[in-house]
Order: sequence, then structure tokens, then C-alpha cells
Amino acid sequence: MAIEIEQQPSVGLSKIAVSDTHGEDSPYFAGWKAYDENPYHESNNPDGVIQMGLAENQVSFDLLEKYLEQHSEASNWGRGTGISAFRENALYQDYHGLETFRKAMASFMEKIRGGRAKFDPNRVVLTAGATAANELLTFILADPGDALLVPTPYYPGFDRDIRWRTGVKIVPIHTDSKNNFRITRQALEEAYSKAQSQNIKVRGVLITNPSNPLGAAVEKTVLEDILEFVTCKNIHLVSDEIYSGSVFCPNEFVSVAEILHARNYKDAERVHIVYSLSKDLGLPGFRVGTIYSYNDKVVTTARRMSSFSLVSSQTQHLLASMLSDTKFTDNYIKTNRERLRKRYEFIIEGLRKSGIECLKGNAGLFCWMNLSPYLDTPTREGELAIWDSIMHEVKLNISPGSSCHCSEPGWFRVCFANMSQQTLEVALKRLHDFMEKRKIEKSLLL
Amino acid sequence: MAIEIEQQPSVGLSKIAVSDTHGEDSPYFAGWKAYDENPYHESNNPDGVIQMGLAENQVSFDLLEKYLEQHSEASNWGRGTGISAFRENALYQDYHGLETFRKAMASFMEKIRGGRAKFDPNRVVLTAGATAANELLTFILADPGDALLVPTPYYPGFDRDIRWRTGVKIVPIHTDSKNNFRITRQALEEAYSKAQSQNIKVRGVLITNPSNPLGAAVEKTVLEDILEFVTCKNIHLVSDEIYSGSVFCPNEFVSVAEILHARNYKDAERVHIVYSLSKDLGLPGFRVGTIYSYNDKVVTTARRMSSFSLVSSQTQHLLASMLSDTKFTDNYIKTNRERLRKRYEFIIEGLRKSGIECLKGNAGLFCWMNLSPYLDTPTREGELAIWDSIMHEVKLNISPGSSCHCSEPGWFRVCFANMSQQTLEVALKRLHDFMEKRKIEKSLLL
Repeated sequence: MAIEIEQQPSVGLSKIAVSDTHGEDSPYFAGWKAYDENPYHESNNPDGVIQMGLAENQVSFDLLEKYLEQHSEASNWGRGTGISAFRENALYQDYHGLETFRKAMASFMEKIRGGRAKFDPNRVVLTAGATAANELLTFILADPGDALLVPTPYYPGFDRDIRWRTGVKIVPIHTDSKNNFRITRQALEEAYSKAQSQNIKVRGVLITNPSNPLGAAVEKTVLEDILEFVTCKNIHLVSDEIYSGSVFCPNEFVSVAEILHARNYKDAERVHIVYSLSKDLGLPGFRVGTIYSYNDKVVTTARRMSSFSLVSSQTQHLLASMLSDTKFTDNYIKTNRERLRKRYEFIIEGLRKSGIECLKGNAGLFCWMNLSPYLDTPTREGELAIWDSIMHEVKLNISPGSSCHCSEPGWFRVCFANMSQQTLEVALKRLHDFMEKRKIEKSLLL
Repeated sequence: MAIEIEQQPSVGLSKIAVSDTHGEDSPYFAGWKAYDENPYHESNNPDGVIQMGLAENQVSFDLLEKYLEQHSEASNWGRGTGISAFRENALYQDYHGLETFRKAMASFMEKIRGGRAKFDPNRVVLTAGATAANELLTFILADPGDALLVPTPYYPGFDRDIRWRTGVKIVPIHTDSKNNFRITRQALEEAYSKAQSQNIKVRGVLITNPSNPLGAAVEKTVLEDILEFVTCKNIHLVSDEIYSGSVFCPNEFVSVAEILHARNYKDAERVHIVYSLSKDLGLPGFRVGTIYSYNDKVVTTARRMSSFSLVSSQTQHLLASMLSDTKFTDNYIKTNRERLRKRYEFIIEGLRKSGIECLKGNAGLFCWMNLSPYLDTPTREGELAIWDSIMHEVKLNISPGSSCHCSEPGWFRVCFANMSQQTLEVALKRLHDFMEKRKIEKSLLL
């Protein structure tokens, strides 16, 4: 930093400021650094690192661009009358958020769920992204030292978002490949008992549905089991559904909202949904997240707390227009799903040709790749060794399952929607060559 | 809320979720409610409540509107080439923030200080408003149970922003009207000793400069005293300078940045500045705050922590253009200052005609009005009694000093920049009539 200051370690900082980096030194983040230093470019840097560690949706960006081209009034304040909209919005800082935008968000969430659940705009609390939403809910549901149960493998960012400033712990619910990483009643009970044996109070279960990193929606029966479990233990359920619009076949996803709707909101007070426009709409820079809670006290408290994390009213204004346009949203949701499914099928097929299988997925911007048959040793070290080769020889940044606290070594999350089709083909070709080379080396050793 | 849920108080929430409202039930917020229920409008509701409790800057809005009219490219993504800017920005979620915007912010902060201090863009950490910035710094500087010393009277929101989620305490540094609410070395020592006697660890001093609610800049000698004090105690200094561009005469404000600059950044590692575009530029809805720290570790940690509170990249994009336009910023800063000074002089003169004096101010969007000679009893109750009359009879929402933890009864913060000149005249007329009526009533009683 240009202003050079004589830094003496004399003035102390808080414990959380000097605490561990909550996974930011893990391969999950290290891979990003390697990418940043040598990013692939089709013509300028064809030997660079291809970023497959970033769950970003670029496949439907043209639809957003087309909308903006046809509706410049949505982002421009216009001349004359439009200016008063600027004044109104620039001053708007009420933590309720623009009513037009909350309504549009509620409708969008309904549409994604095929109208099988209703969302009340008055229960929509806006936050600057799902990161803030998850932390904010944790502050509300749990005291420092308490825990949330989270099924593994889970999104590495949770180690920061859920734990860092709240002082809340994550107790893993272990799942394994034998039953396709399904969350079982037994695993829920085991995690709960483990926390109890350590005198840790469990305040809730946090699931991602569809799952990040599995790329698969939680089955309805499993969801019902989880809901029964949290009711029985009298704890909360946070359902992070930020990939709900990225399910390839709309009927393969069941939101907890649908189950509550069918049950006439019995036990709903313990259920809270997190959503965001970063993944399904591909707008992470705009920082739009939401908490949808069925608990009045949580809604009120979350709204007050959202003062720390409000969404720019300029952005609310633009997106209120966009999401209120049902012709646009109908087409976007449908087209985006189809494109993601095609991408998914393409990568699955490509990997299969290299002898690599993935967990059967139906959602998200990534697949869950099984390299366990190819590890030299079936350990975390073995996993990181092959990750290292793929990172530095093949020059693909993928996320090792150990970063996601996966209980079995050899699984990797591979993102496929943050690049062009051509780049994906290059990545698959590189991986194919790598696997062939390994085959030859192995056969020579035999 | 429309989705009716059978709410049973069965599932518990965290202590902070069910904790006290941190002042949200105080007259400061109650007055807002009264305003919301019956807002003044020149023609539609001329007997309604005039909002003088909102520190909002509307006097220079026409300058922003003019800029946008002349530079539609700044907010519109345009056709053709402009679209790629949309893609780039919509995806941009790096917690460093757009480099163009950080540079523009640093320049703007320099310009406000007449170039007497330098700001390094690499030390600018962006947050969704100053609310988030102050909380974030508190998380970094203090552990739960520790304290920050804050001079009274102070911004009522600090009771929420500094304390609520962090668990940090505020220990007041008392000031009084005898020396114009100046922060003294003795008051600093007394606050520190008081904390120590209660076994509370003091981690820093938090000042607002210019002061909210006093509407006056902190004098240079006082600032030097404070800096000496924090150095001597080896604690931090947070200087919230969100009204630094709203000083009527630029030379009457000295930023802590200028003192550090003059001292060649000696002891700078303990100093952190908070800034925002909500007040000086009148854009609270856009949620743009910043932490400027001279401490490398604080910069790094604050940046990571800003993940919970990022600024929309759409908004960064617009404001990067606006603040990079030096012709615009030069004119804006100068004109805004002049207009605020005129408003201030107008209200001071108007109040004087009603027999009301104010603390001599030189900054901000409010004046600090002394009604202590008119209290029936010189107590908090007396203060709230006259506040109640002004609120419900005169129908002006002003903020009682007790909401700001003022140690003397009878002082009020009166905002003057969130309304038209005409509305301000109506407010002064009403207050004048009220004072006359009181005079007559008093004389009849004698």
C-alpha cells in the first residue's frame, strides 16, 4: 500500500480479527490465486489456467443484455420525468426495501417453484447477497458457542459466513457416496448427539437445496425427514435455495416452501429460506440476497439487522422492472434451465469419455466428479496430490472435496457455466489427455 | 403479514434477537413514526408533521440530476458496446471493489479536505453504508464485553451499530454546554477510568467529526488531544467523518488524516476513518460507505469482512464516473457548502427571532438547539414534555438530546436540509407561534 506506515504490532485487535482464516488458505481459495496469476485466454494465453472453481452463471447473460437493450428505461433515469425516480431512489434507504422490488422477488420465487408455493412480499427481507443473509440468520437463531448442523460436503464459504463473526459452530452431518450423499435420519441423529456430547447447543439445520457442491436437489422424502427431525428436536431449519432456478428439470426440485404450503404452514415458524439473484440470474455483482422467513419475529429482527447490509436502491429499481416483466422471466427461467442442462450433459459425457464418473445431478452450475478410483492413496493427501497435478499440470482450477468437508477423499466440484462452450471443450480435452497419460504411466508400472 | 402462521413461542432465538431494541423505542424513532402517520405536504396536508429528525441532504440534488441528464452513459449501459460493461459489472463481486471507484473515492476525500491529506485507493475498503463500516470496525477492534469511548451527545444509531451484534459496550465521554460540548482531556480520562473501575477493557475512542448531533467540526487542538490520549493508552481512534463535505467553510474542518499527514503518519496504525456518500452527496439509498485505515491488518481484515456488506457494482460503476469528473466534483462541493451555510444561517436567524439560541455550528445538516431556558423542570422529563408539545401540537419532529445521551436536558437536534426552503419557513413560523403562545401563557400565570 502506497502510504507507508511504520507498523508496530503494538495496538491490539479483536480475537476474530486475528483468528484463523476460516478456510481462506484452503485449496479452494488457493486455486483461485493460481488462476488469477495465469488466467486462460483462447488466443492471448491458451496455456493458462481454466477457472472451474467459480460457480458463476454466464450461459444466459445474453437474455439479460437483450432485456436491457429493449428496456433502457429500467437502468437509465431518463430525461425529464425520469429524474424524479432518481431522487426518490437515491434517498430510499428504508430497510423494508422498495415494495415493487419485494413483490417482484416474491413472484420470481413463486415462478421458479412452478407456482406450487406462495411467497408473501411482506416476508421478504433484502440483504446484500446470500452471504449476508446466511450470517444474519445465524446471528438471529444462535448464540455464540451454539451450533448449526450442516450436511457434508458443504460450500466452503460457510466456514466464514456462519462462524466468523457470530461465534457459532458448524457440526457436520456426514453423508457418503454409498447412498449418493443422501442426508439420512441416522446421520442427523449422530450429528446432534455428537454436539450434545460436547455440550454444544444445536439451534438448527442448514441445508443447501439444490446442494452446493453436489449439484443435485434434495429429494422430497429426505426433506420431509429433515423437517420431522427439526420439529422433533424443536430447532430451526435454514434452507439455502440459491440454485432453485438452476434446476434443469423444474419438477425435480421440491422447495421446503412447497412442503409447508401442503401442510398449511404447520411448524413453519422454524423454517427460513435464503435466496439470491447471484446464481439463477447471474448477477453476483449486484449483491441481492433475501431471507424469507415464516417466523414473524425473525422477519422483524432480520429487517432491522439488514441495516448493516442493504441493497442499493438503484439496483432494486432496475431489478424491480426486470423481474416484474413476466414475459421476460418466463422465457429466462425456461431458457436458462435448458442451457444449463445441455452444459451439464455435455460435461458429464465428456468426462465419461475420459473414464470419469460424476454423481447424478439435476441442478446448479457444477458437477460432483469422482476421481476416487484414481487416487494413489485413498486419503486427503491422495486427493490433494491429484488436485495439485490437475491444478499445475492440466491447469484446471477445480475444488477438492476436502475443502467442502467431504468425508470421502477423491471427489471434486467442477464448475461449467462460467465459461464459453469452447473453453469447456478445451478443459475436457486437457483432462482427457491427462487421464490417458496416467493410464499409460500406470500400465508401464505394472 | 398475509401468510398467517400459527405462531407458537416454542422455537428459541438468539439472545441478541430477543434483546432490547437499542434505542429504537426512543423518541428519536418514535418521532419518525408520528411523521410517517401524518406527513406534512404543502397543499395536500398542510397541518401534517414536518420531518426535522432526518439528516438528509436534498439541497444539492439538482446538481446530481443535472450531471445524470448530461451523462446518461454513466447510469445507462447503452446500446452496443455499453452492454459488455453491464456483463463485467454484473459479475464483479470482488471485495476489493472496482479500482476506478476506489480511486474516485480517494480523490473525492482528498478534495473535501482541500488536498491537505492524501488518500491511498489501496486503503479504501468499501461497505454498504457507514452503518456497516462502523459495525465492521468495531468487530475488528474490540471483543465482546470490551468498550469504545464515545463523546456525548452522540448519534442514537450508534447504540445499535456499535453494540448490537458485536457485544461491545459504549462508555460515554461526557461533555457539557459550559464549554460548548468540547471533548476535554479530563472527560476522556474520566470515561477511561470509569470503564477500568468496571473491569471493562477500552479498545478505542469513536468520534464523529464534524459532530452529529452538534453540527460542528472538532477543533484541531481537541483532535490533537484525543490523538495523544489514544496513543498514551495504546488504543484505537475511529473518526467518523461522514459530514466532512458538509462543512460550510472548508478551513474550519481538520480531518485526523491531515494531522497524520503532518506528522508523517506517526502512530497512524491506530487510526481509522469512516466515510460515506449518504450525507455529503445525498445518496443514502445507494449504500456506499468506506473504511479508510492506516493499519495494514485492519485493511486486510475489513476487506475480507466486507463480503457481508458489499456495494452493488452497478452503483460503483455509476459513481466512479460521477466522482471522476473533477469539474462536477469541484462545483458540487463548493455549491453544496454554500447552500448548506445559507440554510444554516436562515434557520439560526429564524430561531433567534423566536428567542431560541443554538450552539455555534459550522457543518452538517442540522443545528443543536437550546430549549433549556424553556423547560418546566431541568430534567429529562422536562425535555421530553416540551418535545411532546413540539411533536404533537407544533407538529415538528425534532430529536431530543436525551436520545443522543446528552448529559444536559433541553437540547434538540433540528435538521434543515431534508426539505424545501418553503417548508422550513412553515416550520419556523409554527415554532415562532408556539413560543409566543408560551410567553403569553407564562405571563398570565405570573
